[in-house]
Amino acid sequence: MGLLKAKGEIYKPLKDVDLGPDSDEFYLRANVKAPRMAGFLVKLFTWMLEMPIFGGILLYFLKRNNLIHKHVTYAGLEEPPMFVPSHPFEDLKEQQVKFIETDLSPSEQVKEAINCLPPSSDASKPSFHRWTILDYSRAYGSGEITPIMVAERFIAAVRESSRPQLDMSFFIDNNADDILRQAAESALRYQQGQAISVLDGVPIAIKDEIDCLPYPTTGGTKWLHKVRPCKDDACCVKLLRSCGAILVGKTNMHELGAGTSGINPHYGATRNPYDTSKVTGGSSSGSAAVVAAGLCPVALGVDGGGSVRMPAGLCGVVGFKPTYGRISHSGVLPLNWTVGMVGILAGTVEDALIVYAAINGQMPLEKSSAASPRVYFPLLKSTSSISNFKLAKSREWFNDCSDEIKVCCSRALSRLHKQYGWETVEVTVPEIEVMRLAHYTTIAAECSTALNPHMEKVNISEFGWDTRVALGVYGSFDSKEYLNAQRIRNRQMQFHTRIFSKADVIVTPTTGVTAYPIMDDARETGELDYINGAAFVRYQIAGNFLGLPAVTVKVGYDKSGLPIGLQFIGRPWSEPTLLHLAFATQALHISEYRKPAVFYDMLRKE
Amino acid sequence: MGLLKAKGEIYKPLKDVDLGPDSDEFYLRANVKAPRMAGFLVKLFTWMLEMPIFGGILLYFLKRNNLIHKHVTYAGLEEPPMFVPSHPFEDLKEQQVKFIETDLSPSEQVKEAINCLPPSSDASKPSFHRWTILDYSRAYGSGEITPIMVAERFIAAVRESSRPQLDMSFFIDNNADDILRQAAESALRYQQGQAISVLDGVPIAIKDEIDCLPYPTTGGTKWLHKVRPCKDDACCVKLLRSCGAILVGKTNMHELGAGTSGINPHYGATRNPYDTSKVTGGSSSGSAAVVAAGLCPVALGVDGGGSVRMPAGLCGVVGFKPTYGRISHSGVLPLNWTVGMVGILAGTVEDALIVYAAINGQMPLEKSSAASPRVYFPLLKSTSSISNFKLAKSREWFNDCSDEIKVCCSRALSRLHKQYGWETVEVTVPEIEVMRLAHYTTIAAECSTALNPHMEKVNISEFGWDTRVALGVYGSFDSKEYLNAQRIRNRQMQFHTRIFSKADVIVTPTTGVTAYPIMDDARETGELDYINGAAFVRYQIAGNFLGLPAVTVKVGYDKSGLPIGLQFIGRPWSEPTLLHLAFATQALHISEYRKPAVFYDMLRKE
Repeated sequence: MGLLKAKGEIYKPLKDVDLGPDSDEFYLRANVKAPRMAGFLVKLFTWMLEMPIFGGILLYFLKRNNLIHKHVTYAGLEEPPMFVPSHPFEDLKEQQVKFIETDLSPSEQVKEAINCLPPSSDASKPSFHRWTILDYSRAYGSGEITPIMVAERFIAAVRESSRPQLDMSFFIDNNADDILRQAAESALRYQQGQAISVLDGVPIAIKDEIDCLPYPTTGGTKWLHKVRPCKDDACCVKLLRSCGAILVGKTNMHELGAGTSGINPHYGATRNPYDTSKVTGGSSSGSAAVVAAGLCPVALGVDGGGSVRMPAGLCGVVGFKPTYGRISHSGVLPLNWTVGMVGILAGTVEDALIVYAAINGQMPLEKSSAASPRVYFPLLKSTSSISNFKLAKSREWFNDCSDEIKVCCSRALSRLHKQYGWETVEVTVPEIEVMRLAHYTTIAAECSTALNPHMEKVNISEFGWDTRVALGVYGSFDSKEYLNAQRIRNRQMQFHTRIFSKADVIVTPTTGVTAYPIMDDARETGELDYINGAAFVRYQIAGNFLGLPAVTVKVGYDKSGLPIGLQFIGRPWSEPTLLHLAFATQALHISEYRKPAVFYDMLRKE
Repeated sequence: MGLLKAKGEIYKPLKDVDLGPDSDEFYLRANVKAPRMAGFLVKLFTWMLEMPIFGGILLYFLKRNNLIHKHVTYAGLEEPPMFVPSHPFEDLKEQQVKFIETDLSPSEQVKEAINCLPPSSDASKPSFHRWTILDYSRAYGSGEITPIMVAERFIAAVRESSRPQLDMSFFIDNNADDILRQAAESALRYQQGQAISVLDGVPIAIKDEIDCLPYPTTGGTKWLHKVRPCKDDACCVKLLRSCGAILVGKTNMHELGAGTSGINPHYGATRNPYDTSKVTGGSSSGSAAVVAAGLCPVALGVDGGGSVRMPAGLCGVVGFKPTYGRISHSGVLPLNWTVGMVGILAGTVEDALIVYAAINGQMPLEKSSAASPRVYFPLLKSTSSISNFKLAKSREWFNDCSDEIKVCCSRALSRLHKQYGWETVEVTVPEIEVMRLAHYTTIAAECSTALNPHMEKVNISEFGWDTRVALGVYGSFDSKEYLNAQRIRNRQMQFHTRIFSKADVIVTPTTGVTAYPIMDDARETGELDYINGAAFVRYQIAGNFLGLPAVTVKVGYDKSGLPIGLQFIGRPWSEPTLLHLAFATQALHISEYRKPAVFYDMLRKE
């Protein structure tokens, strides 16, 4: 194939790349050369891809046509590899933050977080309101509602949502007995005046990629839990449990996190609570949907390529992914090693902060060689005294989305400027599409390697069809491609460092399109829709590939009523800044919040 | 090829691996399935390997038969990857060391090193003596010899050694005018009583993998310097220059460091000064040979897979490779990113310390995120007060060498015990051969990736035949193999950490065989001799793959008079301990030192 060998891109030296607004860096649109496929077409394609020699040729052309050869495989660049997006802790001296002592227990940290919240006021209550952690805590404290009532309502609601009429496919597994047992224990604590924290009795759902007893961890598959039994809670689950939270089950996800639609052929296509004919996005599909539908104020997800922030944005909830290393990865399925991180999906920014307070930090057993990063919480006392933040915007990238999203997100920036005086700084974030390809190469190679020892034991027919295609592509990367992807990671980190010298955060839409329809032909086979997939992940990659913290918050709806999110991407360890920004943005739009089509009022008075 | 797919090794959980002397861990001998090839056979093999489809099949079987598939590709293991062998600095509180302030200049550090040396005494002078840095400094100081005289002798000696009768092939390039200019400047400084340090006027040779003006950096190739011009001194060269050293040229090396024989088809096979019909080992062949032959007291090399320690051992000089990150890699050819490190070849341990003093540390420009490691020098005042070190010995591995080496190295341990009371602790270092395969996978993948952008511009015929074969194999690794190799790195680091809890160092022979003959058929084509190659690198890998410091020192000769080295491998940052051990070992054997067949007495009185 020597004649077919693509010419590699020779990247400019870093110092010659202009990151200013008038940079002549070419904005390369995602050049996805793959038609949408589902049903029989996916099966046919899978069979071809899995053929011994023809499959290899097909993969060659797939990678070549999708510019992986040009931008990654045969690229020429100076940078050495950056293998892990871990950043030495830097004390950013942010404004309006509170330092949290390192020896506090999770429930003490939660208490500190509560002290950072604004006083409750009915004035700011929006037309539509999801119950928050503090709403639960107050209701339990007053005795008007008990954890057992919530547990029973929750079990009934999940049952109802699973009926064929709705078929929401929120959960892969949840166990009524286990939920009721936890609720009874919590109720007893409230009776005895010994609630552990505001999280006591609060229902929290966990993505089925995170170990949580008594459930197996399927990763959205039919087999992974058989070869890798779940023996203990993941670290983040353990921390939530120690605060008294009720762990209500394992949420649905895209099989192995290998796609972004949230359509799972084994456990159902998770439906968007705002429009049940639409996808939620993924891979943390169920975690986004249960929060949007009011079943839980908070859920945990895992974000390897936007998998928390995309479904959060598409379902109109807050999605928050801290800096790489801030939350322990222990007990999370090892589907990759350098891009996946636990993230939080919540109805409000305040609740995201409370759960962040509970789960940040490593377990004492995970002795880290480096000093642990210091923890600060944002003082979300009021939006009037908010700092004067600078938001970097890369125009062509920002605008590479649907017209409705572009208008909605631009309008949000204007309102943020008007209300808080925040300035938008025009910049150019270069080589965005190259970063997407390099990230894809990385997650693909790591996932394929991690799963490889299991593959002998599993019958290929146990996989969904779209996942078989994904795994076929995942296994096709050579070491040169992997290493060059890491060099691109280094290069991009240096670009981002330079941009953060000009602004506090980078601002983007959360996704390039809003939730799209679940097509009938996709429900059995899954679907291959790399065009919508590329539009979903367009703004997500830096959060994973560079380990940067990021948050998405709802800023409006498209004309069919589907949520639109705005994303802030911060420098390493800038969680307080991101939560300040998200909180202020949420406050602007709170009066416009709409109730989803599918919604359960867990604290209703009967 | 599904039917041919090798079963992968399922590695035991770490905690179940017994590292004690009676461990049932199987010692796997290097199972090299490749006959020695040179001359026409290498050409034929190269052509086959470079054939489009047949070459791929050949590579598949090569890797399979050499157990890469079993131990790396399809391995099942728990460990996440460890990509870079960098270790957070640990202050080991070693005995008999001197703390070196961090703000000292290179020449001030050299002065501190001198203060750590024993007083000069003729009593300990061996029968044969290579002139040391202090000998040069004293001779210059007294005026009996000048740097210009040494430079002239040096130029004459190199000329003589290059004549067809000797054909030593020490250097790829050295420039008489540049040497004389440096010598004149140094001579002037001595005249004016302004010598910069004891290194002023001392000839030091640099491996042609390290940038050193005014020379191009060929890496042993005919082309690399054309696509990558040398624009500045490497950091370590700059530091030596700032101490007044005379940089006398670029030493020969195995082409691209892609082999261990030191036979270079473009610049000649470097000959062993102890027996000119034998190889020096490589890849830092010329650097070892010039020190052995008395041309320079010290030379620099680069050690990616034993490339400093092997030729040092085979040529009977000291080879010292500090901890990964201790010496700046800036200005070294980027042939890999995670295994290669600058190392020192010297006639004595004291001289290795002096040059280590000059070049340790990073350039001020290379701002490292982590705090710089602290520097300690060993107080080599006398061997009588030496600490009671514990040496870990893994019997089967230690004994997997020629009988002569086994006897010689065992005798050395007995003498060390008798003289200093050092105890040998029997241990088992498991999975040594697996580590060799994982390291090979790593250096191969990284070298192939690093060279890839240049490959379009180079005619394949510019490479030596053995290097063409090496590059063919190097380019064949997929991302799964690379990632599993990094997981094996993590696993091995944990084994080594446990072993270092029982002993101060691991002791091994330096190589499994002594220098072997340069065959006529190899001189034009190079040779493929993976069996001797595996015996050379048998004890080298931990130094590179795990970034551990290591030192080799001569402990005897085989019956044909070829040197035998003993190696100490230390825990991260234990350079002082290693130099103490090497110094005491050198003191035991110093009366037996033999003069090489080719030797130049640079300080002779005329």
